[in-house]
Amino acid sequence: MPKIEFNNIGTIYSPFDELEGMPIQAIGAKGIKGKIHLNEELKDGLKDLEGFSHLTLIYHLHEVNSYSLEVKPFLDNKSHGIFATRSPKRPNPIGISVVKLDSIKDNVVHISNVDILNGTPLLDIKPYVPQLYEETCNDLRIGWFNEKYQNAENIKSDNRFID
Amino acid sequence: MPKIEFNNIGTIYSPFDELEGMPIQAIGAKGIKGKIHLNEELKDGLKDLEGFSHLTLIYHLHEVNSYSLEVKPFLDNKSHGIFATRSPKRPNPIGISVVKLDSIKDNVVHISNVDILNGTPLLDIKPYVPQLYEETCNDLRIGWFNEKYQNAENIKSDNRFID
Repeated sequence: MPKIEFNNIGTIYSPFDELEGMPIQAIGAKGIKGKIHLNEELKDGLKDLEGFSHLTLIYHLHEVNSYSLEVKPFLDNKSHGIFATRSPKRPNPIGISVVKLDSIKDNVVHISNVDILNGTPLLDIKPYVPQLYEETCNDLRIGWFNEKYQNAENIKSDNRFID
Repeated sequence: MPKIEFNNIGTIYSPFDELEGMPIQAIGAKGIKGKIHLNEELKDGLKDLEGFSHLTLIYHLHEVNSYSLEVKPFLDNKSHGIFATRSPKRPNPIGISVVKLDSIKDNVVHISNVDILNGTPLLDIKPYVPQLYEETCNDLRIGWFNEKYQNAENIKSDNRFID
């Protein structure tokens, strides 16, 4: 497969030094504080970001070293295709989270609702603006999550995807 | 900046061979059809994906060759920090779109509401499950988009970000 190269543009810090016990989704991480140290030379890119209450973070799931095409996700005891899950053991270990923006000081962005491992390499920050697509999402169907997503508030991560 | 390498796992096809005239967001692309050719060896990763009506696609904005820390986005005539916009000229040219899943046949995924350039390299497919974070997004503020986002339905792209 042809390779595509990106830069590590900063680091995400959180209270979670290990996967064991980490929340698996934002709804399980309400109030959990973290911060982003953006590389110093990129800080002008944060101009006007403070007008947004929420951000989409894109990051490298850096503890994951291989992928599986089928996985048993944290929320289910049946296996599913990796692209039908948010499990980290993906062909490209890229994570996305919607977090709350608390404040920005210089190149440091303080955030809440953080379901991300401490020390995670940052790839991108985008403003969270669901108005740009949500009206195209009528008749939403969420597959196997339908009977499971309520559990995401309480179920925690473990190490199964970095073995 | 340290480098992070990913794989091109497939290709996104759309009616848009050039940026000029392309919709800039999903709400400007309603009904526009496209398809994903996932690399043949990854097709087992699509198991159970057909239960989802919408997908989040992560892809490489492959026409973008450099970045700017401040840009004048399509929707505004004022400049903003790149991370406060969805403009492609980002330190890492990574795009995200929420599209509708129409059907899957073998390794080909047919999609609608496609605001993506023809031939775009695919990085990841995730199921779109807003239930996993939307209750953490009360009191949403969308910064400079607040008075502009309605225009995203009609404003089209141009070449400004690949010059």
